[in-house]
Formats: sequence, C-alpha cells, structure tokens
Amino acid sequence: MLKELVIATANEGKYKEFQYLNSVCGNLAEKLIFAPEIANLVVEETGKTYSENAMLKAREWSMKSGLPCLADDSGLEVEALNGAPGLFSARATKGDKVQWILNQLDGIENRKAKFVASLSICVPEKFILICDGICKGQISKSPSGANGFGYDPVFIPDGFTKTFAELEPEIKNSISHRTTAFKNLLNYLPYNINA
Amino acid sequence: MLKELVIATANEGKYKEFQYLNSVCGNLAEKLIFAPEIANLVVEETGKTYSENAMLKAREWSMKSGLPCLADDSGLEVEALNGAPGLFSARATKGDKVQWILNQLDGIENRKAKFVASLSICVPEKFILICDGICKGQISKSPSGANGFGYDPVFIPDGFTKTFAELEPEIKNSISHRTTAFKNLLNYLPYNINA
Repeated sequence: MLKELVIATANEGKYKEFQYLNSVCGNLAEKLIFAPEIANLVVEETGKTYSENAMLKAREWSMKSGLPCLADDSGLEVEALNGAPGLFSARATKGDKVQWILNQLDGIENRKAKFVASLSICVPEKFILICDGICKGQISKSPSGANGFGYDPVFIPDGFTKTFAELEPEIKNSISHRTTAFKNLLNYLPYNINA
Repeated sequence: MLKELVIATANEGKYKEFQYLNSVCGNLAEKLIFAPEIANLVVEETGKTYSENAMLKAREWSMKSGLPCLADDSGLEVEALNGAPGLFSARATKGDKVQWILNQLDGIENRKAKFVASLSICVPEKFILICDGICKGQISKSPSGANGFGYDPVFIPDGFTKTFAELEPEIKNSISHRTTAFKNLLNYLPYNINA
C-alpha cells in the first residue's frame, strides 16, 4: 500500500469517487491528496488513447509533486457510431452530450455501447502502472435518472434495466468501468512498492 | 515470470540485446519472440515522451498478437544542447549523428550527457508496466571504439575513461540505461501475473 497518493484531477467529484473506491475496494493508499491542494498544473491531453492520457497526467503530476500520483481518462464508445464519442467524451462538453447521442442513434436498432476507463499510477523513480476497465451496456431511448454525471442518464449497463443515473451510486460503483480499472490496479500493484 | 514475451522491435540487434538481458539479469520470460516472426506491424511513434512511445508499441503489438509484449524507446540527452537530440535520437539517422553532436559541442566545456531508456510491458487484459533507466556520462572530444551502435563512440559513462564503443559489451550491458530499465521491470513486475 502507498502512504500518500495524489489524485491528479481538478474535478472534485472524481476525487470523491476515488476516495470511495479507496475505502470500499481495498486501500490503494493510506492518504489521498486532491491535486489542486498542492499545485497548479494543467496537463494537455495529447494522447491518442485513454492509456496515454492517463499516463501523461500521472507522470506530469508526479514530476511536479515528487509523490505517487493517480490519474484517469475515460470515455463512452457507441458501436453504431464507430466508437464515438470515445476519446472526446469528456471534452465534448459544449452542447448537450446526452441529446447529441440520442439524435445520432435516432431510428438505429443497434444501441450497444461501452464505458472505458484507463487508470495510471506513477511512482517517481520506480514505475508507471496502467490498468483498464470496461462496462458494457446499451443506450436508452430517452434520458432517465438524476444520479451520476455525463452520459449516465442514457447508459443502461448489461444485466440491468435502469440507467446509471437511476441506479443507486453503490450499485453503479460496484460495476462501473472505473471500479474495474481500480480493482485491476490494486491487483497488479507491485508488492515491493517501497523497495 | 511470463511464458512468452514478444520483443516489439524490427531491430534484430535490439532483440539480441534483450535476449542477453533476459538470460543475465534474471528471466522476465521463458521464451522471447522476435516480433517480425509473428506479424507485420509498424507503430507510429507519436508520443512526446519515451514512456509514451514505449507504451504505444507494446500496446499495439499486444493487440495484434494477443501476447505479452515488451517495447522500448530511448535517447541521448546532451545538457549543453538543452536535452537534444533526445526523443529524436533514433530517428535522426539521415546524417552522421556522432559528428553532428561533436560539431554542436565544438568549443563547449560542458560535455554532460545522459542516455535514457523507457521499457514497457503490456500484458493483454491485465496491465501495462513502464520503467525507466538512466546512464549518465560525458561526450568525448572525438569518436573512439567499434562496439555498440549510435552514439556509443562519443559517450563516456561516469566512472569510466573509455567510450561505450570501446568498453566490452559485458561492461556496457552491466551499466547501460536499458539494463537499468530492464532490472526495474523485473523488480516491479506484478508477482500474480497469471492471476
């Protein structure tokens, strides 16, 4: 287990989600630190994959802070839209993302989609570890529910009939792409991390 | 230890160096596979860091082969040249790289330089691990020696008076940036890799 881990995001909601995962899934670190509390840093997400962007952010924050850092990148990939919005899911924030997807899928039978998350831990002078998580599901015909954020109101995970935004946060957080990636990180984190 | 590991390079010299490291440093894998023997794949090195390029290559080859893959990216960073040739060390192959550096440093006292290597292992559906290695030294006044390749004839590692190209390969391979990165990979490779 790490002593301190900087959560490399300026999004407080995401920071809280990692606090929850850290307490529920098993401790990745004794103490989590919200990045904006220790430094001011904007990392350009120039990668062509989620893994690259997660790695870039974890690495830059580690270099800035000298501490182990965790970063993530994630997106929604809709099969009938050839994987869009994908890498640009988070940045396509100008318009109404949810309505955009419903419009694009108007009259289309294939509603298959998946959330993908890539998490990266950088431990300075030691290693960078990257793990992914996927949550498969369907895009609903109309938005429903008030929990969560982003595309949650139109995403129905496989095995459920409610959207992410309708499900209890505890349920969502037990099956989400970010949870799976977090568990993978815990599973593969080198045991000799302080060696 | 991994059963099979694809060495994601088309450079047979580099493949042989990894075979050597795998046998001398401790086995990362039971069997190494030279990438061109199993597939034809060119991965564009679009990253802005060694780590990104190493990761991109390991990841793409893993997706292509379905097997664990190891890739590397490395470069020479000269302090008085603000870190050049750096990321472009390998690709600046058109002219005489060695002479270019000597010309650039003509009359300059500060000869400090370092070789940097980043190695990445991608195990499909599990994780990507990235480790770095550094070898510090000086740029000599003139080229010397016939071993090795690239910038070896003008690089004198700290603690030695001969260039990498003059040193016995066994000596070079005991202190090189790639060796250090390889040992770090071995050290931090998740023990439950087959979990």
